Amino acid sequence: MGRWEPNARERLAAAALELYGERGYEQTTVAEIAKRAGLTERTFFRHYADKREVLFGGSGELEELFVRAVAGTPADAAPIEALAAGLDAASEIFADRRPYARARHAVIAANAELKERELIKLASLSTALAGTLRGRGVPEPAASLAAEAGVAVFKVGYERWLVASEDRDLVQLVREALTELKAVAAGG
Amino acid sequence: MGRWEPNARERLAAAALELYGERGYEQTTVAEIAKRAGLTERTFFRHYADKREVLFGGSGELEELFVRAVAGTPADAAPIEALAAGLDAASEIFADRRPYARARHAVIAANAELKERELIKLASLSTALAGTLRGRGVPEPAASLAAEAGVAVFKVGYERWLVASEDRDLVQLVREALTELKAVAAGG
Repeated sequence: MGRWEPNARERLAAAALELYGERGYEQTTVAEIAKRAGLTERTFFRHYADKREVLFGGSGELEELFVRAVAGTPADAAPIEALAAGLDAASEIFADRRPYARARHAVIAANAELKERELIKLASLSTALAGTLRGRGVPEPAASLAAEAGVAVFKVGYERWLVASEDRDLVQLVREALTELKAVAAGG
Repeated sequence: MGRWEPNARERLAAAALELYGERGYEQTTVAEIAKRAGLTERTFFRHYADKREVLFGGSGELEELFVRAVAGTPADAAPIEALAAGLDAASEIFADRRPYARARHAVIAANAELKERELIKLASLSTALAGTLRGRGVPEPAASLAAEAGVAVFKVGYERWLVASEDRDLVQLVREALTELKAVAAGG
């Protein structure tokens, strides 16, 4: 096989999730992931720094899309409306990823270190969003509070979306969570 | 000296913070902390499981006070009002702890592992608050969203309180953060 492998990144991610589910995250090696995907370890390391990064490789994309959508709203949009646009953009990329997201979540929920990593990624997202809002002239503490609220809405909507019996899509569940947050804050 | 040492827990915490500030958290040993406090390692381990726990020993108390105050509000109080009572109760215990809290924050900010630990404690607080709200009949996702919002308000108020130039007290800053969250959610 040549150096270029079609869909190598996705094949490696699928193979890793299968193995994490079968054997546990701790017990799985990069060599096994590469073999299951029909690729070499060298190819694995061209795509991921280590086996943990397979699970978190998408969080940079999520943050970028979320922040870009917030930054792209009209300058006079209220912070919560700018965040609503970011939430939509971030949610849309998950449209066809539910089976993968559920398998990923099961692996993360079983491992304390991975749960910490997930929290750090969300904290990083909140910091980035607060910076974007400040760049639009939103003062503190409103910028940080709006950013934290936006991340909380995404997290709660995302967790509902993962539930086995839930079949509504992520965009819808996140919008519902935003509506719910507004109601809670208004004393509902 | 006998087995009982007056204020041993506080003396150990003060000694640990001094040493973390002087030498760095990683470079400080339990033996050095005990020596600085004029106590034995044995006494240290009667109060703290390890040197990390010195920094997080208060988070159980914070969670307990916060949850108890939420649970103690009238049954017909809206979730955000129940949380407001919890935020007040949690903030009051910090009244005379600002110098300690600032030194602690400087140590945590310099160490990735400690920052993760802080995020986990906040996530645990949010989970506990959501459970308390569900126990009061608040349905999901309102319970989780209200809990996340309450923790975000505390976090943002607490971070402002730590700023060197800030001299308003924590109760006041957290109340302001709650007011600000309500304004943000209302589209302000």
